[in-house]
Amino acid sequence: MTTTPQPATVYGRPVTTEGVPNLYEGTSVTQWVPPIPGIDNLGISSIDTFAVPGVGEYTVPFDGFVRVVRSEPTSKEWVNAEVYTNLIEMKMVGESEELGRITVTLNPECLSTGQIRTPFDPYAGEGPSAKACRMAVGAIFDMPKLGMKLINKEPIILTIDDVRSIPPAGSPGKGQIYRMLPLHDSRHLEDSPVAYVTSLRFTMGGYITAEKIAAV
Amino acid sequence: MTTTPQPATVYGRPVTTEGVPNLYEGTSVTQWVPPIPGIDNLGISSIDTFAVPGVGEYTVPFDGFVRVVRSEPTSKEWVNAEVYTNLIEMKMVGESEELGRITVTLNPECLSTGQIRTPFDPYAGEGPSAKACRMAVGAIFDMPKLGMKLINKEPIILTIDDVRSIPPAGSPGKGQIYRMLPLHDSRHLEDSPVAYVTSLRFTMGGYITAEKIAAV
Repeated sequence: MTTTPQPATVYGRPVTTEGVPNLYEGTSVTQWVPPIPGIDNLGISSIDTFAVPGVGEYTVPFDGFVRVVRSEPTSKEWVNAEVYTNLIEMKMVGESEELGRITVTLNPECLSTGQIRTPFDPYAGEGPSAKACRMAVGAIFDMPKLGMKLINKEPIILTIDDVRSIPPAGSPGKGQIYRMLPLHDSRHLEDSPVAYVTSLRFTMGGYITAEKIAAV
Repeated sequence: MTTTPQPATVYGRPVTTEGVPNLYEGTSVTQWVPPIPGIDNLGISSIDTFAVPGVGEYTVPFDGFVRVVRSEPTSKEWVNAEVYTNLIEMKMVGESEELGRITVTLNPECLSTGQIRTPFDPYAGEGPSAKACRMAVGAIFDMPKLGMKLINKEPIILTIDDVRSIPPAGSPGKGQIYRMLPLHDSRHLEDSPVAYVTSLRFTMGGYITAEKIAAV
């Protein structure tokens, strides 16, 4: 019984937030143990590169928070456990001389979903039983200086490798963008893209306080 | 004025098919020249690897066709031209001892869209002014032996590099899958994925006849 409108596009498995506790700064994280469900309130930073055809390419650092709800793990054993996630809130703010202030939030038309599981192709250098984390995200990049909100109509795939704890706080991650990810003007979604994300690297932060979230 | 139902999820820019001619075997392709709009009827082959958790990993060769409508190029000069595409029909058939016969078609809930443009990051080894081709695809993998139709809820991103003609007939391409792309049982789309695509390599074929398309 949710009161929020159903998003038109659902990238994976929905996860309920009902009865799931919010977890803030001070929550302990244990390696190699699948945790019980929670809503992780985490810091995040990101460095995104935007290409605007005929204008230029701009690299912008962002800082902010995410709120991620996690499902019951499918197993109590780390190696067998799958955990499903939904990104329920995000706000990141960046500033660039050319593009001005940019605020990134979730696109309410999409349910941004993810999962953590043992990969089928373990990498050399990953810890034993390390897991892979992935999330498909629909975002809005609000750029008031340009008078535009930019929207991705293909999800941005955010990945973290070598995951040894849930949440993978402190881990570096990547947006799996192959050459370019199109961004559309929110007022003209059926038109050609007006810009592209060409690179996205991020770092998952640790648990933060409700005050820090409110201050972003 | 289209009579087909509107797909719920649109991955990019829609392209009209109205008044656009079908192009079959015998159509000539010129390098470095943006062509006028057309519906390309092309052969395609693909080698996909599926991982079924707890069961195994299966590599299956596919063969079939695609029908792609192309937009008016945004410029008559190759280097400046952007061309938008929609995948309007696809059928590929593969066979595997374990998975049985697999038929891949488009998911009508999604508009599978793509584009061809000059990349922001030219590769060493690509031809001068070579373009990059990308398409976001929603598919149905019908596996009657398993009694299941599998659906991707994140688009499969198909890419072709070093594009010197449109269509890029004969070019090898890749599905840009990072470790795993979740597949859901069509009857239980809100549940956890039941399988994954872990690798996808394809080769774009040339123009084919209507008879060959009918025979797939």
